Amino acid sequence: MHVRAFIGEMEQLAPPELAEDFDAGKIGLIVEGKSTVDTVCCALDATHSVVKRAIAAHADMLLVHHTPLWTPLTSLTGPTATLMRDVLASGLNIYVMHTNFDHAESGVNDALAELLSLTNTEPMTLGLVGDCPLSLKEIARRLDCPVRVWGKIKKLQRLAVVGGSGFDPEFMAEAKERGADAFLSAELKHSVYRAAPLPCIEATHYALEAPAMKRLAVQKGWRFIADPPVLHSVP
Amino acid sequence: MHVRAFIGEMEQLAPPELAEDFDAGKIGLIVEGKSTVDTVCCALDATHSVVKRAIAAHADMLLVHHTPLWTPLTSLTGPTATLMRDVLASGLNIYVMHTNFDHAESGVNDALAELLSLTNTEPMTLGLVGDCPLSLKEIARRLDCPVRVWGKIKKLQRLAVVGGSGFDPEFMAEAKERGADAFLSAELKHSVYRAAPLPCIEATHYALEAPAMKRLAVQKGWRFIADPPVLHSVP
Amino acid sequence: MHVRAFIGEMEQLAPPELAEDFDAGKIGLIVEGKSTVDTVCCALDATHSVVKRAIAAHADMLLVHHTPLWTPLTSLTGPTATLMRDVLASGLNIYVMHTNFDHAESGVNDALAELLSLTNTEPMTLGLVGDCPLSLKEIARRLDCPVRVWGKIKKLQRLAVVGGSGFDPEFMAEAKERGADAFLSAELKHSVYRAAPLPCIEATHYALEAPAMKRLAVQKGWRFIADPPVLHSVP
Amino acid sequence: MHVRAFIGEMEQLAPPELAEDFDAGKIGLIVEGKSTVDTVCCALDATHSVVKRAIAAHADMLLVHHTPLWTPLTSLTGPTATLMRDVLASGLNIYVMHTNFDHAESGVNDALAELLSLTNTEPMTLGLVGDCPLSLKEIARRLDCPVRVWGKIKKLQRLAVVGGSGFDPEFMAEAKERGADAFLSAELKHSVYRAAPLPCIEATHYALEAPAMKRLAVQKGWRFIADPPVLHSVP
Amino acid sequence: MHVRAFIGEMEQLAPPELAEDFDAGKIGLIVEGKSTVDTVCCALDATHSVVKRAIAAHADMLLVHHTPLWTPLTSLTGPTATLMRDVLASGLNIYVMHTNFDHAESGVNDALAELLSLTNTEPMTLGLVGDCPLSLKEIARRLDCPVRVWGKIKKLQRLAVVGGSGFDPEFMAEAKERGADAFLSAELKHSVYRAAPLPCIEATHYALEAPAMKRLAVQKGWRFIADPPVLHSVP
Amino acid sequence: MHVRAFIGEMEQLAPPELAEDFDAGKIGLIVEGKSTVDTVCCALDATHSVVKRAIAAHADMLLVHHTPLWTPLTSLTGPTATLMRDVLASGLNIYVMHTNFDHAESGVNDALAELLSLTNTEPMTLGLVGDCPLSLKEIARRLDCPVRVWGKIKKLQRLAVVGGSGFDPEFMAEAKERGADAFLSAELKHSVYRAAPLPCIEATHYALEAPAMKRLAVQKGWRFIADPPVLHSVP
Repeated sequence: MHVRAFIGEMEQLAPPELAEDFDAGKIGLIVEGKSTVDTVCCALDATHSVVKRAIAAHADMLLVHHTPLWTPLTSLTGPTATLMRDVLASGLNIYVMHTNFDHAESGVNDALAELLSLTNTEPMTLGLVGDCPLSLKEIARRLDCPVRVWGKIKKLQRLAVVGGSGFDPEFMAEAKERGADAFLSAELKHSVYRAAPLPCIEATHYALEAPAMKRLAVQKGWRFIADPPVLHSVP
Repeated sequence: MHVRAFIGEMEQLAPPELAEDFDAGKIGLIVEGKSTVDTVCCALDATHSVVKRAIAAHADMLLVHHTPLWTPLTSLTGPTATLMRDVLASGLNIYVMHTNFDHAESGVNDALAELLSLTNTEPMTLGLVGDCPLSLKEIARRLDCPVRVWGKIKKLQRLAVVGGSGFDPEFMAEAKERGADAFLSAELKHSVYRAAPLPCIEATHYALEAPAMKRLAVQKGWRFIADPPVLHSVP
Repeated sequence: MHVRAFIGEMEQLAPPELAEDFDAGKIGLIVEGKSTVDTVCCALDATHSVVKRAIAAHADMLLVHHTPLWTPLTSLTGPTATLMRDVLASGLNIYVMHTNFDHAESGVNDALAELLSLTNTEPMTLGLVGDCPLSLKEIARRLDCPVRVWGKIKKLQRLAVVGGSGFDPEFMAEAKERGADAFLSAELKHSVYRAAPLPCIEATHYALEAPAMKRLAVQKGWRFIADPPVLHSVP
Repeated sequence: MHVRAFIGEMEQLAPPELAEDFDAGKIGLIVEGKSTVDTVCCALDATHSVVKRAIAAHADMLLVHHTPLWTPLTSLTGPTATLMRDVLASGLNIYVMHTNFDHAESGVNDALAELLSLTNTEPMTLGLVGDCPLSLKEIARRLDCPVRVWGKIKKLQRLAVVGGSGFDPEFMAEAKERGADAFLSAELKHSVYRAAPLPCIEATHYALEAPAMKRLAVQKGWRFIADPPVLHSVP
Repeated sequence: MHVRAFIGEMEQLAPPELAEDFDAGKIGLIVEGKSTVDTVCCALDATHSVVKRAIAAHADMLLVHHTPLWTPLTSLTGPTATLMRDVLASGLNIYVMHTNFDHAESGVNDALAELLSLTNTEPMTLGLVGDCPLSLKEIARRLDCPVRVWGKIKKLQRLAVVGGSGFDPEFMAEAKERGADAFLSAELKHSVYRAAPLPCIEATHYALEAPAMKRLAVQKGWRFIADPPVLHSVP
Repeated sequence: MHVRAFIGEMEQLAPPELAEDFDAGKIGLIVEGKSTVDTVCCALDATHSVVKRAIAAHADMLLVHHTPLWTPLTSLTGPTATLMRDVLASGLNIYVMHTNFDHAESGVNDALAELLSLTNTEPMTLGLVGDCPLSLKEIARRLDCPVRVWGKIKKLQRLAVVGGSGFDPEFMAEAKERGADAFLSAELKHSVYRAAPLPCIEATHYALEAPAMKRLAVQKGWRFIADPPVLHSVP
């Protein structure tokens, strides 16, 4: 498949116009390699480990959620130079779907809802709320990461989920209004917790967003390359 | 003591000119109550629970690290109105020492170093590095919160600590250069972890900053009012 | 009446979307008190004198034109702390209608036109022009304040009026074009006078805006609380 | 005298570096005419009336406090074109001393203090305070304009004066601290009056600033061209 | 004809709303002279030489492409004062049509296409592309200026032309896409040349824009006043 | 030599702190390759042609005046991707000295003065003035590019030179004041020419800046890689 055709397909899946303004220039084909795409790999981040495994798998295309070129560059040095040397030398293309995939119909939050078996889901400004049949333990097991629970969860029937760093006071107020009993997301700040209108379940950013990439890989017959954070809780 | 005298004393302890620019107008006497200060309470945040206990203790002054009026107000409604009604009605003064206390000599990071028995300490741009004789388990026990360990800690001899939300790439590079084996702070972001030059130990914001307020209370003979987040890890 | 119902009624009268951008966050319910509104007082400004009289009158709601919280606050000290202590302690709500009331159909300028018996009125971008049957002396008498007349008024048949601080070169050019013989407003600047295309009648800000609040109070059966500036001319 | 020499002399009197930032490009020689300066006229504003009288007096130089080109121009039309046609055609130079003259040692406020016979004067950030032996009536007489008195003056021993539009809350607080009984300036706003810490005496901008220009003209042997606002109070 | 009627006619020709935002306040009647317009002259720039010739020709109106008051003025000194003295004294009006004329239907680029005998023209975002029957030598001859040719022109069938300073990477990419063999404009920067997707023919700004003014003068029966740069190439 | 040592040497030659603010992040080692530097090439721009020749010459380091990464990048596509693939694959380092080299003692303008045999040179804010013994023809010959002469040069004794794009009204005024008869630089704009206080000699950007890079190569024993624009004048 020509890389143009691949791009066209991806733009159907996660239309660029759904992206937030801050993603301008940071989504789509952000590293240009070979013009023919036969083998696609898929991951959350284009870490060096992921890139090496994609190259070893003879991939022509690596589809990721987070661009490796977030901060605008006027030099190529250090780890970025090393990473780009390997990427460019191998002819690997890198394609990014970020907030456009967050907002897409079968995107990040939809995959999360499926993973957590949410029913009666209702979309929010970002993320969604749904009935959750799982215990906290089972939620942590399915996300495959330890979770931190902030505040007391009296019952856990209706759960709000926002993939990524979604503990925003406005989203949390919306979740509360829509009857959520708890709010699941990542990267909770102290000041936000202090004013939180409902209990918070804090997973990792990776655990919440990788499932969508994995599901997409399965659907498309691509290889998903896992690279979760090395993390454990003490005690 | 007149409130002016109290202010003078605090300005010696944590000179306002040490504060970051973003703290302008948000430190010092931010709620004015009675002009005589006999009873002082001390806490990390002026939550409603803390304020009620301070009033019950007949305090004239509540000293906190985080202002309850962070976002500039053009209205007094909701929880802020309720909080301020109690504060103003009781004549309680609220005094804030924030980044000026972070940067002060016997401030937030110094208290943390003491709590964790760090030796051979060396100051960084923010926070410090020191030799740490404790196990991770003991660190978590002294901080009185579960910690999340990101990355593999091969040895833990020299530890960098930054109270509050201190996982900043520049501070972490500095810590690495100064020979730190791990970096202890709060609120680690996924993107920062991905590029982290050393393993990260993530405690809570509260656990890292409350010790300094508590130590100050002990030194001054004030009452410290604890209000830690309600938090547990699953599994 | 529940405070929500009162707000709904006021938003009909002076729709928030009519307000200028600079009023964002500064109109509507800006101090939240009791949730039931039985007794309403009305004034131009929420001065301490006005607030005390409203409390003495057992008001639950004080409706004003000018918010007492114009400058965004990160502290409550001095006169603002004293004022808010009384307001919050008494459970008095404060509701503000500012530029939305200026622009409303039966708002500030309409009341002024009525007070000055203007006929054949025609709306301007702000304020209005109309035929004025009154002498300058009678205008001053009805406004209940000494006026300063800048420039020579040859005849005074058609008068432009803009409540508040309305001596704006653009409004004055518009008034001139619409055939006004003089322009009545408050707070004339020297540089504006120097380029004024028509004579200016300068009343006080209070004298031009209080009538609308008073008229509204009469219409609604509320108590109007007067608090004019203490002012006299010498000689 | 060459115009360069004249400029040198004026820069001694009111050094350009004393001017506020907003005066950048708006002081000094702002219209360039003949290179020889024999006859100088002096006024507060370069109104058309003033300019015509200066030309009739065969002036080569008109020294003013307020520039006629305040708003940056990209066109010369209307009254500005008419004014500039006369100025340029006659070869009249226009030289402006604005905030540099306000801040100069024998400048605007100093002339005002002299006019009002103030003694024991003390400089403020802007303007000055001094003992005032005059009644309000006599103050108005010497300023040659009706004044508006806001608030109740209990005694009038120590008076703060700021030439021009000086009713600034910070200056007024400073005046209060320095023991002033009243504050004399021009262009008082309603909101400033509401929070004023001391009574205000409001004269015209012209009445407060023209004396300095007149005194300078007398000292230098130039002709002062008066052009006061046409103003009267009703009643 | 009244100047208003003349303006109306010009606004039909080059509607002000076609102008770029940076032209705000810099097009239209930018110097106001006599109100009756009998004799019109036309030029590219209102240089002093042009103005003197227009006055000598008893013109009431000078129509130009480039305003002589580009940089906003707060003073009239040096060459601008000298120029404006002559303009204002003579009562000459100056009217500017800039980017509105660039974008107008029979404007700058259209005149250029005619001069260079372009056929099958197609509009671009700015400028146009067309079939060019001329040799480079003939192009230079008709433009009446030496041209600099950057890069190798293999064939010159289809030519992109943008009057004025039009070597913009975006316009050049558009020209390339539309099949242009070369790009004709003025003021080519080194960095733009380095990334140029097609060969560049660099004429002078004057040579590219004066033809439109000349053609307009011919159409209207006005006098065109030429004032080309004094320019020659070495060797 | 280790790349660190090479950098140290270059920083002596052209201290980074001499650079303009707009060069922040765009000078120094902007592509990181091998850590050992044995063979150095030197050019004005890192064009693809230059890079290929440097690689063919087994260079470890390419020193240039203009960075190939001027516009901050969030993607590597098109010609930049192709260029960076070759650079990174070969391990070629790229080091940039830009405005720091313009301002350095033996930098861009000094080399130009030497090339044109200027004597009695005097530094300006940027560039310099000196006595020039050459004819225009000889100047063009030594610069190895056709020059455009704007305005009439009556005599050419004292010449101002500014390497690069230096036709700035302020620099030209300075040159005039210092007695220059003409001003040599590149990229003259029409509007600047119209107000130019002295005749302008316009060479190419390349012709003015390459000599300094070539001279440096000679001094250091490096290879200079020429890549002048392909340019000719018609007629």
